[in-house]
Amino acid sequence: MAMSISIPELRKFLEPESVMILGASRVVGEDNPNIVANLIDCGYSGKIYPVNKNATEILGFKAYPRVKDVPGKVELAIIATPRDTVLQGVRDCVDKGIKAIVILAQGFADSNKEGRILQEEIVHIVRKGGSRVLGPNTFGSSNAFFNFTTAFRPLLMEKIPIGLICQTGSLVMGFPNFKFIGKCFDLGNSADIDFIDALEYFSNDPEVKVIALHMEGLKEARGRDFIKVAKKAVEKKPVLVLKTGRSVQGEKSASSHTGCMVGDDKVYSGAFKQCGIIRANDIDELADLCRAFLYLPLMRSNRVGVITGSGGIGTLVADFCEENGLRVAQLSHNTICELDKLFPSWFSVSNPLDIAPAATIMGHPRQETYRIALRSLLKDDNVDAVMFVGAPIAQGESWDPSQPAIEVIREFPYKPVVFWLYGHYALDVTDRIEKENSTLVFPSVSRAIKVLHSLWYYYHIKSEYTQ
Amino acid sequence: MAMSISIPELRKFLEPESVMILGASRVVGEDNPNIVANLIDCGYSGKIYPVNKNATEILGFKAYPRVKDVPGKVELAIIATPRDTVLQGVRDCVDKGIKAIVILAQGFADSNKEGRILQEEIVHIVRKGGSRVLGPNTFGSSNAFFNFTTAFRPLLMEKIPIGLICQTGSLVMGFPNFKFIGKCFDLGNSADIDFIDALEYFSNDPEVKVIALHMEGLKEARGRDFIKVAKKAVEKKPVLVLKTGRSVQGEKSASSHTGCMVGDDKVYSGAFKQCGIIRANDIDELADLCRAFLYLPLMRSNRVGVITGSGGIGTLVADFCEENGLRVAQLSHNTICELDKLFPSWFSVSNPLDIAPAATIMGHPRQETYRIALRSLLKDDNVDAVMFVGAPIAQGESWDPSQPAIEVIREFPYKPVVFWLYGHYALDVTDRIEKENSTLVFPSVSRAIKVLHSLWYYYHIKSEYTQ
Repeated sequence: MAMSISIPELRKFLEPESVMILGASRVVGEDNPNIVANLIDCGYSGKIYPVNKNATEILGFKAYPRVKDVPGKVELAIIATPRDTVLQGVRDCVDKGIKAIVILAQGFADSNKEGRILQEEIVHIVRKGGSRVLGPNTFGSSNAFFNFTTAFRPLLMEKIPIGLICQTGSLVMGFPNFKFIGKCFDLGNSADIDFIDALEYFSNDPEVKVIALHMEGLKEARGRDFIKVAKKAVEKKPVLVLKTGRSVQGEKSASSHTGCMVGDDKVYSGAFKQCGIIRANDIDELADLCRAFLYLPLMRSNRVGVITGSGGIGTLVADFCEENGLRVAQLSHNTICELDKLFPSWFSVSNPLDIAPAATIMGHPRQETYRIALRSLLKDDNVDAVMFVGAPIAQGESWDPSQPAIEVIREFPYKPVVFWLYGHYALDVTDRIEKENSTLVFPSVSRAIKVLHSLWYYYHIKSEYTQ
Repeated sequence: MAMSISIPELRKFLEPESVMILGASRVVGEDNPNIVANLIDCGYSGKIYPVNKNATEILGFKAYPRVKDVPGKVELAIIATPRDTVLQGVRDCVDKGIKAIVILAQGFADSNKEGRILQEEIVHIVRKGGSRVLGPNTFGSSNAFFNFTTAFRPLLMEKIPIGLICQTGSLVMGFPNFKFIGKCFDLGNSADIDFIDALEYFSNDPEVKVIALHMEGLKEARGRDFIKVAKKAVEKKPVLVLKTGRSVQGEKSASSHTGCMVGDDKVYSGAFKQCGIIRANDIDELADLCRAFLYLPLMRSNRVGVITGSGGIGTLVADFCEENGLRVAQLSHNTICELDKLFPSWFSVSNPLDIAPAATIMGHPRQETYRIALRSLLKDDNVDAVMFVGAPIAQGESWDPSQPAIEVIREFPYKPVVFWLYGHYALDVTDRIEKENSTLVFPSVSRAIKVLHSLWYYYHIKSEYTQ
């Protein structure tokens, strides 16, 4: 595939050989955002040029009073000065021939009329000079694979093949229990570089396997381009979106946050559907989907096998299956015969499969029951995925399904298995189950089932593309 | 209020002075459910009579070969024998004049035709003998206030004023991070004692402040009685329900779990609405609501003030407010003037309130900003509750809103404040914020907002009753 024009330009934001920091701070510490310190901490190995007229050296790097004093070529400039000096900074960068500029400050299209005019002037200057701008009102770009970030807060980055494109730094920070910063463009007000540019970049980036978007709004004029680029992206890898500003009050909030024109949510819904983009409603749902598409196989049809130690939870799982367009699998005759031996005579094997009587009444070792039940369901052609409700209500191996599950899942790498756990030792067992990332634990039944739905939906979308 | 006939009968299940265990086990240990051991562990101080024809003593208690050998009066019998011997056990208990009987075994209306007939026979015998049965297919009853449980698994009980009425033992186990076993009736197949009995009991129990139901189904003939009893209960305390078997496939699962006729979910929805019962969709939502009604004040109208360090999250909060029938509060002129001083001139104070510029641009100490922002919003007459999005992205006091929040919330005990946290130290800070239970942290924006909606809905319901 021919590389689009935006690829080499945007690469400078993620893999710059040299970076200049306008307004680099001399102070470090908990309450003092320091970009140079962040770059050192994350192991950046390119050239660092701090610009600060009051310093000759910052954290071991020679500091320069003005942009034009910096020797040689600079690939990326981070403008970290207050709002009122940003315009001059942009001019200086463009004059120096810097093609990639990140503007961190707030107070542009996100504030008042004056801010909007300032932002327009900036765009005018960079376009004329052949440069590109990321922001303003942003954490900028981050790339765990290149040990690089423009953010002014410390990030926990990991070489996870997720490309995040967002309009808020809060997502760049990652989350407790799941840090999804592999590579990131925080578009902020998206004055210049926008979703289309970043999406095209990540869809062509072999280090990115899943693309996650947090979107407040898209310029109307870019709608067609977005759909074109998004369709191509979805053909190659899953594209997930958390669209905010979807309500009247949310739209109002968005316009004061990033100055975006939000527009009717139905239009976005239609566009996402047309492209096969998968929509998340909340941040935790977005994180669920990222983890699922990173680690789990797709689901080839919509029939779910359910293993549970509680018939009551089985009923809840069945409800969520139906509410998410999935079906509770009808087990094959062979599977039923195989499982029948585990249970008392009055018990009729069905799906959801309540395995409690096998242990409590028949006295089968619990781990062996987990193993047989999971293997029987996974090898059944009528089952496309398994939801396993584990109940580590006591400490000790016999209540812990992790080892049997991991072993059986290895035999069926093309069917997703998801877990929900309850009981006092649920959190301890979670780590063991997710040890190899071959199956994942979700914090509620509904979230586990939503994930299965998306794994099936994307399989379906992919099949359409290959028809 | 005159005490209903069911009250003294049901009290025996929660506060028995003496308890007999049919089929009491001699074996203890991780994989050996032992009711006597459980009773000892939870500190039960009543009389314990194990019945086991193969033992003369169990865990220090004299064991009896047959029911009729047990001396004196027994208030509650727990039948822990296998299914096939249950009927005879029930006969023996009734003959001995025991008025309260718990049947733990599965294999009755939850299994096949034979099981259904067995269950009918049991009901026939107890009704004739003037006794009541809880179950079968149940963990039975538990009461942290009386250090009592009939469950065959160890429970973590706490003297929390929540009365749980459920049809699955999995809920009796409680959850990681929140154990809501104060008092509990696990109805199982609800062959005799049903939702109406238990609901009436808890609505008259001064130790219960919140009633939580997990319901698979209700006998059609009991529909009117349920509505009558539920209305009275809701007048006194919030009644929450997780109704499962709400889909066609869930209904099928429920009928093989507890043998309940489930019926059309719309009928249940209508009945719950008519009574003012608050519906949860998943187990975590039910736990959220339990915590909220235990610890937070009601919300008097539907206007939410939002404090956030991220404009992007503010937009998401606004979306969820609107989607849940709440409004993003319009701040009063006074509040805006007061807050204006914290921010740069180009910033227009509005709700959701992005407090980041106060710290990052104006250099205000972060804790002081939390304090001022929260106090200004809570004292504004246009604000009925506050959603606080905290961001402990670094360790250290300045990122931790817990102390200022707890102090300010003390001044406004009649307005609920809920938190969502992101950032690497979110979990550490959660414990400190919830230290006094005066405010709660929820694991997602949507769950926090759903809780506010319910706190407002119940206020509204209560007002209708007092009109």
